[in-house]
Amino acid sequence: MTETILERSEGRVSYHDSVEEMLPRIREDGMSNVFDRWTKQEKIRCNFCLQGLSCQQCSNGPCRISEKSGQDKGVCGIGADAMAMRKLLLQNIMGAGTYSHHAYEAFRTLRATGEGKTPFKITDVNKLKWMCETLGINANQDVNQMAIQLADLLNNQMNIGTEEPNLMVEAFAPKKRKKIWRDLHIYPAGTVHEEQNCVASCLTNVDGDYVSLALKALRLGLSTIYNSQIGLEMVQDILFGTPQPHEVNVDLGIMDPDYVNIVFNGHQPWAGVATIQKAKTPEIQAKAKAAGAKGLRVVGSIETGQELLQRFPVDDVFVGLMGNWLSIEPLLATGTVDVMAMEENCSPPAIDMYAEKYQVTLVSVSTIIGVPGLEHKIPYHPNEVESMADQLINLGIENFKKRHGKITAKVPKITQKAIAGFSTEAVLGALGNKLDPLVDVIAAGKIKGVVALANCSTLRNGPQDWNTVNLTKELIKRDILVVAGGCGNHALEVAGLCNLDAVKMAGKGLGEVCGSLKIPPVLSFGTCTDTGRISMLVTALADHLDVDVPQLPIAVTAPEWMEQKATIDGVFAVAYGAYTHLSPTPFVTGAPQLVKLLTQDVEGLTGGKIALGDDPVEVANNIEAHIISKRKGLGLS
Amino acid sequence: MTETILERSEGRVSYHDSVEEMLPRIREDGMSNVFDRWTKQEKIRCNFCLQGLSCQQCSNGPCRISEKSGQDKGVCGIGADAMAMRKLLLQNIMGAGTYSHHAYEAFRTLRATGEGKTPFKITDVNKLKWMCETLGINANQDVNQMAIQLADLLNNQMNIGTEEPNLMVEAFAPKKRKKIWRDLHIYPAGTVHEEQNCVASCLTNVDGDYVSLALKALRLGLSTIYNSQIGLEMVQDILFGTPQPHEVNVDLGIMDPDYVNIVFNGHQPWAGVATIQKAKTPEIQAKAKAAGAKGLRVVGSIETGQELLQRFPVDDVFVGLMGNWLSIEPLLATGTVDVMAMEENCSPPAIDMYAEKYQVTLVSVSTIIGVPGLEHKIPYHPNEVESMADQLINLGIENFKKRHGKITAKVPKITQKAIAGFSTEAVLGALGNKLDPLVDVIAAGKIKGVVALANCSTLRNGPQDWNTVNLTKELIKRDILVVAGGCGNHALEVAGLCNLDAVKMAGKGLGEVCGSLKIPPVLSFGTCTDTGRISMLVTALADHLDVDVPQLPIAVTAPEWMEQKATIDGVFAVAYGAYTHLSPTPFVTGAPQLVKLLTQDVEGLTGGKIALGDDPVEVANNIEAHIISKRKGLGLS
Repeated sequence: MTETILERSEGRVSYHDSVEEMLPRIREDGMSNVFDRWTKQEKIRCNFCLQGLSCQQCSNGPCRISEKSGQDKGVCGIGADAMAMRKLLLQNIMGAGTYSHHAYEAFRTLRATGEGKTPFKITDVNKLKWMCETLGINANQDVNQMAIQLADLLNNQMNIGTEEPNLMVEAFAPKKRKKIWRDLHIYPAGTVHEEQNCVASCLTNVDGDYVSLALKALRLGLSTIYNSQIGLEMVQDILFGTPQPHEVNVDLGIMDPDYVNIVFNGHQPWAGVATIQKAKTPEIQAKAKAAGAKGLRVVGSIETGQELLQRFPVDDVFVGLMGNWLSIEPLLATGTVDVMAMEENCSPPAIDMYAEKYQVTLVSVSTIIGVPGLEHKIPYHPNEVESMADQLINLGIENFKKRHGKITAKVPKITQKAIAGFSTEAVLGALGNKLDPLVDVIAAGKIKGVVALANCSTLRNGPQDWNTVNLTKELIKRDILVVAGGCGNHALEVAGLCNLDAVKMAGKGLGEVCGSLKIPPVLSFGTCTDTGRISMLVTALADHLDVDVPQLPIAVTAPEWMEQKATIDGVFAVAYGAYTHLSPTPFVTGAPQLVKLLTQDVEGLTGGKIALGDDPVEVANNIEAHIISKRKGLGLS
Repeated sequence: MTETILERSEGRVSYHDSVEEMLPRIREDGMSNVFDRWTKQEKIRCNFCLQGLSCQQCSNGPCRISEKSGQDKGVCGIGADAMAMRKLLLQNIMGAGTYSHHAYEAFRTLRATGEGKTPFKITDVNKLKWMCETLGINANQDVNQMAIQLADLLNNQMNIGTEEPNLMVEAFAPKKRKKIWRDLHIYPAGTVHEEQNCVASCLTNVDGDYVSLALKALRLGLSTIYNSQIGLEMVQDILFGTPQPHEVNVDLGIMDPDYVNIVFNGHQPWAGVATIQKAKTPEIQAKAKAAGAKGLRVVGSIETGQELLQRFPVDDVFVGLMGNWLSIEPLLATGTVDVMAMEENCSPPAIDMYAEKYQVTLVSVSTIIGVPGLEHKIPYHPNEVESMADQLINLGIENFKKRHGKITAKVPKITQKAIAGFSTEAVLGALGNKLDPLVDVIAAGKIKGVVALANCSTLRNGPQDWNTVNLTKELIKRDILVVAGGCGNHALEVAGLCNLDAVKMAGKGLGEVCGSLKIPPVLSFGTCTDTGRISMLVTALADHLDVDVPQLPIAVTAPEWMEQKATIDGVFAVAYGAYTHLSPTPFVTGAPQLVKLLTQDVEGLTGGKIALGDDPVEVANNIEAHIISKRKGLGLS
């Protein structure tokens, strides 16, 4: 027997040496940390919860389902399948709600920018015009007026009911999908409308049918991607530029204790961009130097970092990306962070003790964030983002005075290169603005197929990023191109799979294509919010070939999904018609009919389905088999 | 030692003899039922879940908190207090979402009625004018135009962000409360905006601070009552008439197997009203008779029943209210129901087997409802409600042919009288359109104070309605007037506390007032959705006396809360400034700081707080002590 990939992780908590290097300090300093909390929780897991068979919604409960001992229903009468699916739908609602919160902030930022009330400007005028043309707004008018009208339309689209036309779905969904969605009654209204309908359905004694609940999830997934995600990413492109590939620095080695370091953490780039702009002025650098620092730097953390990384060069002021969410506690323990500005997940709740120990000023820059004892709350408002940047810079400089020379810094000397900033436009650009070259290399079998990897990072199926990195290695080895978004993408960047050196890890065909195009075998497409952006590339391919999504040699994988935005992305992928691999297994295994629906029967409805499996080699084999079967369907060898 | 009230319930599952009478049939027929499922679940309860110390949100989990054995945090780092509060906030979101779903349907029904597209008309023109004047709409115009403008304004108010004026809060909140809410940052935006903000806050690694989460719940509670509940109830008054007291029939004895019986179940009256209107035509009655029935009847079930009961006389066609949600399975087991039309909670998920056994046609008349195997789905649309009524009537007649003579009916011969239909307007009317007489009897101590009872029915703290009925008896005995809404109100109606015979159960002072005004000691104010309506009476009292809510000799009780709308009502009451008794104890007891916040510290913020306790006598004593202390504060003996 050969050793499995997981067995080779023995004794590690992370794929990344930088994180491994920080762990002894964290433990010596007696800090509670995510890795050790994982080990402790492993001892008291609930098997009912793991199977989706536990419900705490109402005062008749808490209930558990145990068919063996005669408890086949909750007190209200709900069965195993609906109980598990309702919990999953609630997770989906949280994901949809968070994406639409981000979209709400994006749309009002675009509007305020059009009104001249922010320090931002319309950077990609062509994209603004294209979006306006696509959605029926007059594109022959003042740029700012266009921005305002687009912002209003997108915000309205997020809220439309079932009677109004869904312009975003009409514009961005694959041509052959729309009828299928209508026939299944999953063609969606706006995200907020669907969320409202779903959340009311989850109330005790409202929807107790797993099929009905599952269809609601599919519908919500479609609205989330089309009416929130794609809109918000296009708006961010308009404001800050459409991503184009460029080389960046990642991993904890980017930290330098001698600078004032302001870290932006979460998903939303507003305060980060405003601070980069400010920090590039000589006045601010001089102010930092006057406080004894070598200067002031902006550091990207997790998805906010990736949003910045996609669109801004790494330079003296913006130094790169630290990694994904499981690296946050290690980052804070380096003793180099002055301000941790947070606006969305993941802003883990126990970092208050890191702030105290390593002298970090924690700041929420959104209404949704909360960390115990948080003193500094500067809720985001587009009109005030410049002043927010000023406040963050001042807090950073003040913190530096208390930190520098008092807290011993410990920075792993590991920095990795990555090429970030791929987008549909960038891929098309690299191909001479047409899809045929991509079709040709797929048809020729040099690239067998494309896998979209979008997910988080979890400890459930091994050390941090172990599964993500190893599965990706297996896929590119099999000549399957990987397009990555989310914390999984950061994992691949930090692990060195998103640079040109990685071409040698690819199979012969893929390696040849990468070599000639000067692209890595893993295309960094941004964050989990770019799931919609990734779908745009696949949609373009399907429409170009005049086929439906399930016919394409593609798949989706979330090899380390962790939170609720990942679950709604996964559900979208199934509705979109994709083979969708998820690891770890969602908490539904106690619901046999639901498992059958999600992993088998749904394929007869949408053409997509959920595939499970925690072993990278086995998962890669299954994905390859799926891709080969789809190639055959298209008459490709 | 005297026997406690709970001990006297030994061997019973319900306060109501009618339900007790149905139970043997249900058991003999081998039907799964809520009472026996309760007993089974009692054997496998999870103590972590009961304390709020279990989380299944993300793939790092499921986590449990057990300080004793060193698991003081979840894997992400969340502590006990935030874990429990986040779960409670999620429940609140479900409640707010369901109320705002109801409001959405109400507002579009008003609009469609203004457009002449429904079979409804503007019944209470004065209320329409008053609402328009209150909210700044021109009231000197065509009634239908006013209706359309009001509908649009109310729908918009539900969606406003923080920058727009909250017209509903400005119009309906107590004068002295608004500044307090602003100072605490809980003055709300629209319900949907607050829900969005809350749901994004509940995502893993977003808000891990119990104080921040609790403040969000308070804010959501305020928006729910002002921007959804009050709006929707006023709209229902405009459409179907403002409730006025009148005598009605309740309990299972209202069922007659020889009629075609169409039951409306849930909270939303649309299809029920349209069907009553249709059923009053000779053609429909003739059609039913042609099928061998004595005629066709409409039966009110739970809150939909109460919505109808408040506004429509009980007669040959609309025969009354069957009881509350725990009576649904017993109702179906009578073998007398032809159609069960459902649009909201509680539509319990295991009634599919009752439908099969007792020949009932189950129909969802809303997008949110799901019952396993449901064949008939007629989603509500205002423009189609007349055709919905036709379809329901046809389904009823078809079912009658299959049921009558084939299913043996068993109907408990128990029908109770109740006076339903109180409202602020009705109370003022009874007092000669001024509040002074009420103030006078309170000042004179004849009525010591007022308790608003709004809640569900649960088995957690005893048999169905045992706590609700017994607590109410204890309160009225102490000269405390009870104003009731929700499934708890149906309990009191069925138990005979809402009729004039009940005056003899009241204390001397309250009895005297009831006798002279010809009102029962328990005023039936409608459904849980009328929590806002009840607050309007209290607000009128506070503003009339120029005092703030916490100064009034009032309290709120939910002696048998069950689902998530009850939790948002409870949270509203705390923000409103009320002493708020909840039983059973919410699942937060493992969160010591949170318990302290909700039961003690919050009083220093809003003036309200949560009080616990499951024993009716003890709870009544505590409420009485609270009321007496507030009387003293106002200088009353």
